[in-house]
Amino acid sequence: MAIRYGVIGTGALGGFYGGMLAKAGQQVHFLFRSDFEHVRKHGLRVDSVSGNFHLPEVNAHHTSQQMPVCDVVLVCLKTTGNHLLPEMIRPLLHSESLVVLLQNGLGLEEELSAQLPGVQIAGGLAFICSNKIGPGHIHHLDYGKLILGSHNVSDPEILKKVVNDFQSSGIHADLSPDLRFARWQKLVWNIPFNGMTVVLNTTTDRLMADENTRELSRELMLEVIHGANHCGVPLKESLAQQMIDMTIKMKPYAPSMKLDFDFRRPMEIEYIYSKPIETARKAGFEMSKVSMLEKQLRFIQENW
Amino acid sequence: MAIRYGVIGTGALGGFYGGMLAKAGQQVHFLFRSDFEHVRKHGLRVDSVSGNFHLPEVNAHHTSQQMPVCDVVLVCLKTTGNHLLPEMIRPLLHSESLVVLLQNGLGLEEELSAQLPGVQIAGGLAFICSNKIGPGHIHHLDYGKLILGSHNVSDPEILKKVVNDFQSSGIHADLSPDLRFARWQKLVWNIPFNGMTVVLNTTTDRLMADENTRELSRELMLEVIHGANHCGVPLKESLAQQMIDMTIKMKPYAPSMKLDFDFRRPMEIEYIYSKPIETARKAGFEMSKVSMLEKQLRFIQENW
Repeated sequence: MAIRYGVIGTGALGGFYGGMLAKAGQQVHFLFRSDFEHVRKHGLRVDSVSGNFHLPEVNAHHTSQQMPVCDVVLVCLKTTGNHLLPEMIRPLLHSESLVVLLQNGLGLEEELSAQLPGVQIAGGLAFICSNKIGPGHIHHLDYGKLILGSHNVSDPEILKKVVNDFQSSGIHADLSPDLRFARWQKLVWNIPFNGMTVVLNTTTDRLMADENTRELSRELMLEVIHGANHCGVPLKESLAQQMIDMTIKMKPYAPSMKLDFDFRRPMEIEYIYSKPIETARKAGFEMSKVSMLEKQLRFIQENW
Repeated sequence: MAIRYGVIGTGALGGFYGGMLAKAGQQVHFLFRSDFEHVRKHGLRVDSVSGNFHLPEVNAHHTSQQMPVCDVVLVCLKTTGNHLLPEMIRPLLHSESLVVLLQNGLGLEEELSAQLPGVQIAGGLAFICSNKIGPGHIHHLDYGKLILGSHNVSDPEILKKVVNDFQSSGIHADLSPDLRFARWQKLVWNIPFNGMTVVLNTTTDRLMADENTRELSRELMLEVIHGANHCGVPLKESLAQQMIDMTIKMKPYAPSMKLDFDFRRPMEIEYIYSKPIETARKAGFEMSKVSMLEKQLRFIQENW
């Protein structure tokens, strides 16, 4: 039986992943806010390194009340809007629905699970460079791998089916046996580079070219790894050097928080910094440099 | 017997303190670089909260070779020029000369002492808001207290006489029995506020108004206090709260490093950050947040 998908937040991520599913023939319902009128008239356009495409007619909706119930709800919003999630998601759910949080950070599934008891929740991590460059217009620059993992999924078949659907749509998707591991692993990269590109107003290549910030990135990564270890997540210290090496090889890159900062949008400080700091602290480890970066970001958020 | 003073670096500090001595009738020889011609023609002007004054004729020199030997050499240069100090000072010295380093940071006297063996050296800390606002033109905004302390002074009378001369000139000067204590104490303020105003492009009042940076300032201060403690300097933890309270009451202020940054001059990272970090590390204590701030500043110094 085909899955009916709902995409909440049709931006850089939702537009690309949802667009790829729709292009492959899946039934996908998109929630749009400001882009609704434009997409209803002109459809959804994706400029992608793996091939441009245009979907002239998509199932576009302006509120979630107008959407049909869905089997799988892909949440692709920035976490800065997560206080609105329960009311946005609730109209889309039937008794077996699965909600997949394609968002960065920690504690997301736990929070939503407390707000929507009994709902099946999974998480997803997108390793992708993608931006929204205009109304209903996505630019996919590089990468695209998607890692999904269960939080409290009682029907493992549906999660496998989602992974299969992504794979059939041309997405490099995979199932992680341990969502917490995957989330912490991504934080090892996100924590140094999101924050430092904002605080030092720069890009990853310049952070890597300077010995001081290269070393500081490594120190921040090790702190996140030790934080994860205290929470029972067995990340290895060698991951830090691997990620440094990978980042040195990357093209100059401004992570999503840097773009949010440049466009004076709220930054995802809460789930990328505060929740991990708090989680590690509860497990007895103080991520003190990460915490310093968090405070600098909060100052910038409030004062710039 | 009257002391003959030499002032190396006649800027915000040297212009004010040297100017006050000269105004009181002391023999003071000033070394000027770019301002030499202007001061020879127009003299030295000090706009001060404690009374404006103008010295139409001062002993102005363009190189230290042209200066007479001095009994007391007041070094008022930024530490970013300290590699030039030995050759600048040497022509001014007789066998009993005293060099007083009116500079911020740590390790200054030790370094100069190794470069000029056998020379009497003292240190000084200026608690003053003062800027050079034009050629030979100093603006003294607030405060002015001067704390002097011996590094290796064999003739304690000369240091007392210097303090007396300052006091007779209207400067609130005092002798510290422990120069290292005084230097570390000043670092407790300088380390958080110099660096954070640069990294976050702000002023002290805004750092104090935001709970995140107020807390981070306190954490940095405590780290410096613990660093000092490991070096045998008995600063109390309660000093952190005192300095926070004092800074909350201060007018909005841009510390000297922020001004250096704004005018794209080299910042005094080496002696305000690197030397204290290194000194504490040798004593077995890692000032990890201070070290993070140092790395951020070095990145900014090199990249902005």
